[in-house]
Amino acid sequence: MPRPILLFTGPFSDRPLDELAAKASEWGYAGLELATWGDHFEIQRAAAEPDYCQAKLDLLARHDLQAGVLAAFRVSTAVGDIIDGRHQPLLPDYIWGNGDPAGVQQRATEEMLATAQMAEQVGISTVSGFLGSPLWSYVAGWPGPSTEMVDAGFDYIVEAWAPILERFRDCGVRYAFEVHPGQIAFDLYSTERLLDAFGGREEFGLTFDPSHLLWQGIDPAEFLHRFADRIYHVHIKDAIIGLNGRAGLLSGYWPSGDRRRGWQFRSPGHGGVDWEAIIRALHQIRYDGPLSVDWHDPDMDRDAGAEDACKFVQRLDFEPRT
Amino acid sequence: MPRPILLFTGPFSDRPLDELAAKASEWGYAGLELATWGDHFEIQRAAAEPDYCQAKLDLLARHDLQAGVLAAFRVSTAVGDIIDGRHQPLLPDYIWGNGDPAGVQQRATEEMLATAQMAEQVGISTVSGFLGSPLWSYVAGWPGPSTEMVDAGFDYIVEAWAPILERFRDCGVRYAFEVHPGQIAFDLYSTERLLDAFGGREEFGLTFDPSHLLWQGIDPAEFLHRFADRIYHVHIKDAIIGLNGRAGLLSGYWPSGDRRRGWQFRSPGHGGVDWEAIIRALHQIRYDGPLSVDWHDPDMDRDAGAEDACKFVQRLDFEPRT
Amino acid sequence: MPRPILLFTGPFSDRPLDELAAKASEWGYAGLELATWGDHFEIQRAAAEPDYCQAKLDLLARHDLQAGVLAAFRVSTAVGDIIDGRHQPLLPDYIWGNGDPAGVQQRATEEMLATAQMAEQVGISTVSGFLGSPLWSYVAGWPGPSTEMVDAGFDYIVEAWAPILERFRDCGVRYAFEVHPGQIAFDLYSTERLLDAFGGREEFGLTFDPSHLLWQGIDPAEFLHRFADRIYHVHIKDAIIGLNGRAGLLSGYWPSGDRRRGWQFRSPGHGGVDWEAIIRALHQIRYDGPLSVDWHDPDMDRDAGAEDACKFVQRLDFEPRT
Amino acid sequence: MPRPILLFTGPFSDRPLDELAAKASEWGYAGLELATWGDHFEIQRAAAEPDYCQAKLDLLARHDLQAGVLAAFRVSTAVGDIIDGRHQPLLPDYIWGNGDPAGVQQRATEEMLATAQMAEQVGISTVSGFLGSPLWSYVAGWPGPSTEMVDAGFDYIVEAWAPILERFRDCGVRYAFEVHPGQIAFDLYSTERLLDAFGGREEFGLTFDPSHLLWQGIDPAEFLHRFADRIYHVHIKDAIIGLNGRAGLLSGYWPSGDRRRGWQFRSPGHGGVDWEAIIRALHQIRYDGPLSVDWHDPDMDRDAGAEDACKFVQRLDFEPRT
Amino acid sequence: MPRPILLFTGPFSDRPLDELAAKASEWGYAGLELATWGDHFEIQRAAAEPDYCQAKLDLLARHDLQAGVLAAFRVSTAVGDIIDGRHQPLLPDYIWGNGDPAGVQQRATEEMLATAQMAEQVGISTVSGFLGSPLWSYVAGWPGPSTEMVDAGFDYIVEAWAPILERFRDCGVRYAFEVHPGQIAFDLYSTERLLDAFGGREEFGLTFDPSHLLWQGIDPAEFLHRFADRIYHVHIKDAIIGLNGRAGLLSGYWPSGDRRRGWQFRSPGHGGVDWEAIIRALHQIRYDGPLSVDWHDPDMDRDAGAEDACKFVQRLDFEPRT
Amino acid sequence: MPRPILLFTGPFSDRPLDELAAKASEWGYAGLELATWGDHFEIQRAAAEPDYCQAKLDLLARHDLQAGVLAAFRVSTAVGDIIDGRHQPLLPDYIWGNGDPAGVQQRATEEMLATAQMAEQVGISTVSGFLGSPLWSYVAGWPGPSTEMVDAGFDYIVEAWAPILERFRDCGVRYAFEVHPGQIAFDLYSTERLLDAFGGREEFGLTFDPSHLLWQGIDPAEFLHRFADRIYHVHIKDAIIGLNGRAGLLSGYWPSGDRRRGWQFRSPGHGGVDWEAIIRALHQIRYDGPLSVDWHDPDMDRDAGAEDACKFVQRLDFEPRT
Repeated sequence: MPRPILLFTGPFSDRPLDELAAKASEWGYAGLELATWGDHFEIQRAAAEPDYCQAKLDLLARHDLQAGVLAAFRVSTAVGDIIDGRHQPLLPDYIWGNGDPAGVQQRATEEMLATAQMAEQVGISTVSGFLGSPLWSYVAGWPGPSTEMVDAGFDYIVEAWAPILERFRDCGVRYAFEVHPGQIAFDLYSTERLLDAFGGREEFGLTFDPSHLLWQGIDPAEFLHRFADRIYHVHIKDAIIGLNGRAGLLSGYWPSGDRRRGWQFRSPGHGGVDWEAIIRALHQIRYDGPLSVDWHDPDMDRDAGAEDACKFVQRLDFEPRT
Repeated sequence: MPRPILLFTGPFSDRPLDELAAKASEWGYAGLELATWGDHFEIQRAAAEPDYCQAKLDLLARHDLQAGVLAAFRVSTAVGDIIDGRHQPLLPDYIWGNGDPAGVQQRATEEMLATAQMAEQVGISTVSGFLGSPLWSYVAGWPGPSTEMVDAGFDYIVEAWAPILERFRDCGVRYAFEVHPGQIAFDLYSTERLLDAFGGREEFGLTFDPSHLLWQGIDPAEFLHRFADRIYHVHIKDAIIGLNGRAGLLSGYWPSGDRRRGWQFRSPGHGGVDWEAIIRALHQIRYDGPLSVDWHDPDMDRDAGAEDACKFVQRLDFEPRT
Repeated sequence: MPRPILLFTGPFSDRPLDELAAKASEWGYAGLELATWGDHFEIQRAAAEPDYCQAKLDLLARHDLQAGVLAAFRVSTAVGDIIDGRHQPLLPDYIWGNGDPAGVQQRATEEMLATAQMAEQVGISTVSGFLGSPLWSYVAGWPGPSTEMVDAGFDYIVEAWAPILERFRDCGVRYAFEVHPGQIAFDLYSTERLLDAFGGREEFGLTFDPSHLLWQGIDPAEFLHRFADRIYHVHIKDAIIGLNGRAGLLSGYWPSGDRRRGWQFRSPGHGGVDWEAIIRALHQIRYDGPLSVDWHDPDMDRDAGAEDACKFVQRLDFEPRT
Repeated sequence: MPRPILLFTGPFSDRPLDELAAKASEWGYAGLELATWGDHFEIQRAAAEPDYCQAKLDLLARHDLQAGVLAAFRVSTAVGDIIDGRHQPLLPDYIWGNGDPAGVQQRATEEMLATAQMAEQVGISTVSGFLGSPLWSYVAGWPGPSTEMVDAGFDYIVEAWAPILERFRDCGVRYAFEVHPGQIAFDLYSTERLLDAFGGREEFGLTFDPSHLLWQGIDPAEFLHRFADRIYHVHIKDAIIGLNGRAGLLSGYWPSGDRRRGWQFRSPGHGGVDWEAIIRALHQIRYDGPLSVDWHDPDMDRDAGAEDACKFVQRLDFEPRT
Repeated sequence: MPRPILLFTGPFSDRPLDELAAKASEWGYAGLELATWGDHFEIQRAAAEPDYCQAKLDLLARHDLQAGVLAAFRVSTAVGDIIDGRHQPLLPDYIWGNGDPAGVQQRATEEMLATAQMAEQVGISTVSGFLGSPLWSYVAGWPGPSTEMVDAGFDYIVEAWAPILERFRDCGVRYAFEVHPGQIAFDLYSTERLLDAFGGREEFGLTFDPSHLLWQGIDPAEFLHRFADRIYHVHIKDAIIGLNGRAGLLSGYWPSGDRRRGWQFRSPGHGGVDWEAIIRALHQIRYDGPLSVDWHDPDMDRDAGAEDACKFVQRLDFEPRT
Repeated sequence: MPRPILLFTGPFSDRPLDELAAKASEWGYAGLELATWGDHFEIQRAAAEPDYCQAKLDLLARHDLQAGVLAAFRVSTAVGDIIDGRHQPLLPDYIWGNGDPAGVQQRATEEMLATAQMAEQVGISTVSGFLGSPLWSYVAGWPGPSTEMVDAGFDYIVEAWAPILERFRDCGVRYAFEVHPGQIAFDLYSTERLLDAFGGREEFGLTFDPSHLLWQGIDPAEFLHRFADRIYHVHIKDAIIGLNGRAGLLSGYWPSGDRRRGWQFRSPGHGGVDWEAIIRALHQIRYDGPLSVDWHDPDMDRDAGAEDACKFVQRLDFEPRT
């Protein structure tokens, strides 16, 4: 039986959930990965208003959609990041407050504790998100960090997240961290290191997204096999490398779509990701969770693209050998 | 006439200059790019001791070596970087002081002003170095910086460096910034942006080093043509990409030589850099400065490698069409 | 809104227009790029017979097709070429006459003047075609031309075409020259040179066709970005490179489909052209003219192929970000 | 025993033979391929002055050089080409005359007849050169030639050259035609066609030059195996393909070294030719003639390059299995 | 007119023919390539039971399927192989008997004689199968065979098969041998040798299968052109090469799907075979026989895959130029 | 200190050892890997004649060569192979006898026992050789072996070799098996399986030879890292892949040098092996044994090639970082 195809609502958070859900259903999606920003799923309202959760579930049911996953990318990164001005637009005012780093991290932590509880309450078994990183500014640059600084960075993340992950465990909800540049783990070997640091907690796993592995030169299928039992969620997101001698892989200070970048996001199936290899690896590791379209493409109409992506994933997810 | 081949003394700063100079001469080098750390060329002593500069020049003359370039990579990066623990081992105590960022930057600035003067005094026309960056932690990660933050970052560098560059101009010394990951400019387009920001100052140019362009996917020869009139110095440094599906280009938290890295430094001619294309581009842009070996190779004996590198560059630098 | 998909009737000029139009409509085309040969659109009859133009428009309307573009490839090349026996089968008798080169060129020029007028009369705003070249025999061979000979060649083309282009300007019709081997401009840099030579005439632009750029090793998307404001028309034509150590890229004296050729035309989507990159570049440069299928494939049935091509372009031309 | 390494004097025809011979000997060459232009070997003087030939042989002997091959590229191409202004600078005045094509071709033919005789007289068994082509302007362009026009072109060449080749046969001298763009045969299949057209004349064979095969996408080693018994002479000439999305393989109207060209000549061993494969193919087909350096490199000093090339070929030509 | 698409029943021989035929028809197949094992087409029963053949034909007719080809892979290999334990599970008991090699070969030969007759009887004009090989154990290993041993191996196959092929000729049935690792001919040059050995027998030709050519590095389209008049049958079977530095092309002792293998079978269109090139080559050589899906894919559901494959071949087999 | 460079005498076994040793010494080799065939090192004579061993050592000493390794490839393969006519020319008459397989294997086993003793006696600590294989005929072909047959094959080898390896252990001599097509282990994963089967015997390790890994698509450096502590000996042997669409990787029935083969041996440094990666891997795993040139090249003179190879390895083996 094919896996449920979700639409991750993050890239549509400017649009009311009701309107988006109608579209998603029409485009063929089976459910949503609900962003915890915009009006899609607001943690504080869910905690405070008795009917909030049920109303959201009803809304989805009206459109024949399941609530597959809760996505907490924005707040979660503030738990482990070195806080600066970039975080303000990502956070609700009640978390940003006066922007004092220690306070922001404290309030972000509380929000993540509440997120675990709200997921349990609404019957969602997986929350996707980030961890943040105190080490990112040392990656690839000069001077690099000493071994002690790297150790300290991982310790810092483990300490910051241990209480949150315990809450997830208690709530019976899994936390699926997306390996991503900017985060404490961004490639295969830093993920190995991270999983070692967390020491086998069952509630902690990974959101797989091949787009950022592509431009780093890492084989996404190899990544799936390496962490077979920790793939808790999958993002369908494509990218293309467009080196021409001038653009570089780091893509510098330029926004999505700018031709000075060495790689770009692409609507699934329109880029360079080897999806055939990925779907087979997912079959082989017996991943049976959802496939969630995280849609970004600087050249394509968003709605037409999201529909095209759903059809692409339907064709892609062939029936595995039983 | 072939260009002078220098040995950059930075990778040998653990060794007394006298001993290193004897070796360099024996290996075939025509001169040195003197590090301003170790005992190779100490700015404060040069400024304070009347005979220091002449003694260094005499030392080099004894070994039949020229003093080609002064290298200020360590102190210079502290001018524009966000200061943290990584900088302490790079800086002399009198600059690090108590490590308070503002104080460190102030003292690093003063050291660079003195560096310009000492270069003039010792008859060296080019100083190589870095600029630092307040933006590096935002490159390639998430969340990325806003356009305003990028603008502010470049403004910050221009402001911090304007007085130093004016001193260089007054001293008749050129400052050759090395485009490098971790710095404000690390690829072709960020270099364009940087040169725009500095608005055509004649005393400001570039140290070309192809090794870091290689793994970012940028064509080093294209870089030379793009900034033909701003190539003030050249580092000969090689690297190799060794992707195997698991390692990534960012190379993570792992030290030089670790097989989990997606690329490694290599002794010149033993890596993946297309030196033939580079020497032709240098001919075409009529670069007539030195070629300075910046030697790094995790697998090779340092002395044998430095000698091998000198012979490699001698073969490489063929006579151009006049 | 997707761009209109036209069928260029040139490859079907052996078939009566009425019959072809019925087919084109059935295959899904929105309009035709009408050849000025066969019975498709005869300039002299259009000029001489009062009802000719209207009758053609009525014919197209009956099949629900628009008259998108007028294609004057055959006569136009005779304006600037060195005339020889190859031109006779391409030209109507009243232009070829006795084949004396000066006379042929004179009569071809007059025909192009009339073409501009007929396009205006029939309400077509773009004419596609060639320019010819007095220089082609010097390209890639030996002995090559002197700089003076190249200058003279461009002067010759400008002189021959200036009066024709003035007529186009006066008629409010644009002339879209196809960059093509055999013509004065056949690659990116010769096109730069040509546009310089014409000095910015607004009525003069380009018909983009990626197939011939492919085998010359030029990136079609780069070509679009380079001449963004001069892309007046687009041909959808595919090709494949099939080097095997024996065939060469110049493809010698051998006809289409012969295995001794190093490249072959292919039905769109069945060859080596990166259409995804091209459609994105067309979006980025905001080209909003038609996409005209110029169908050639030595292995495929012409009718089945033309239908397949229309469907291919429909899928290709995704909705751009607004 | 290694094959004799010759220096083709054509690229040095601005220099007196005596001076060049002294250099060539010093650089390590075993002999010269003498250009029939400059003062290197003037056919008319050789025919008219009783001591001319012996004086040349004495000159070479003084420098310990053999007279390996006579090179008639300039005049020979005028036999079969369509004559235009490009030929004037290539031809002596007594051949160009008033430039009337028929007269030029007639006088070029007579010169080639004399060339065969002078080669015999001076004891040289191989003359290298071109054939010219009436068809070049039809290659790769549009409109292409009909099959009849191609047939006529080959007939034309055969007719023009039959009397010359008969003279070569009678003199016991072989004519080694260089397959080259601009000529009637320029790739593998056009060479097949040409050899068919000449019908197996023993005195007619090929000068192999891999540089032009490279950019046409043809495997030079395959070429050698295909025409194993017709390789009468070998030019050592290298080239490199430098496509970057903008430059094209036809290299347009731009001179050697111009960065708008898609390929460039390179000093042997500094380009993209797979010499290891070529020397093995020469061993396998048991070619035992000379290896003649045809030196062109837009970036390199001519003298330093010619010396470097001689050393390169010495290393290259390893001892074959006996 | 498109070629009939058959399903080769071998990979489904565990399923009763009636059930499979119903499925195949539903999936869109036009006919079957009937395995002579399982209950699909049993040679002995066909020979012994008067109604057997007609019943099979009726069965197929009920499902609107043609009986396209008879497949005798299992028994045929026993004719020429060195018999060992691997053959027992492939052969019916009445052929295996006591497993004595000479007896097995004798009984396999008789079965092949009967196969020719049954094909004639049931109106099938082509039988696909193997030949076996006494030489396979010498391929690629050490010590290799002497020339005499290779000669003897081919003689052995010719002798063993001559009587069988004569029977095929007499019955008017063609034998289409599949070039395959393990067989006497497994690549292009061994096939040349084999056809020479058989000396032009008209009844003997080839079953083309690109999957095994792929991993051996042979161009399947080149294979088709080389043996254009001997392609008697075509298998549609795909594969993918998945080298990662550890796996090897010989794929060792590991079963299909094991990641230690350097290549894997893939459902048609999901692998690395260039089907576009193959269908064009089939058009060019005017092959008009069936396209028979030989379905293997370790990751995909067999039924879903067989249906997907039929649709893939329908799209693939475009209308050729007439 | 660089590793000793040996010449493996096997490819020169037609030449008396005394003559070969003189040459090897002159070519620059530090020692020999002595073949146990020809007159190089005859096991039976060594066992029977009291002065044989000392005489060989004296001979080598006269030429300033060390006796580095004993090579037993020919006899050793007969221990585990299925014996047939190919083995007769490889074996001395006293082992081949009447060619009865069981007897041959028995006598080969005895010879290997004696080889261990002679190695000890002559002071050689490593013997290189093969194991044979009862499974080779099942690799890559059809039908493949069952898992049970593979298990039985490994058991067979372990049983056959256990007594021999025990003798090696008792003599303090290591047996370095060369992973090679035709043998029980021929790639990375079959080597893993083999080492498992032998269960960690210290006296059993590997002779590394990259040439056969190359054409199988396996990364030789990865192989070295995988079996870092079991690399007991290294062969320097190069090869090149020369696929052209017709030749295949299995290389069929054709002898070395035949152009129908898809790969060929090459003199070290003249082929496709990445020696730079290999020497670095050898440094990293701290291999300090000899580098033994196993010279094969179908195009090159054997003596000139062996000398060239020695110089190549001298340059290659750079001084590692201490």
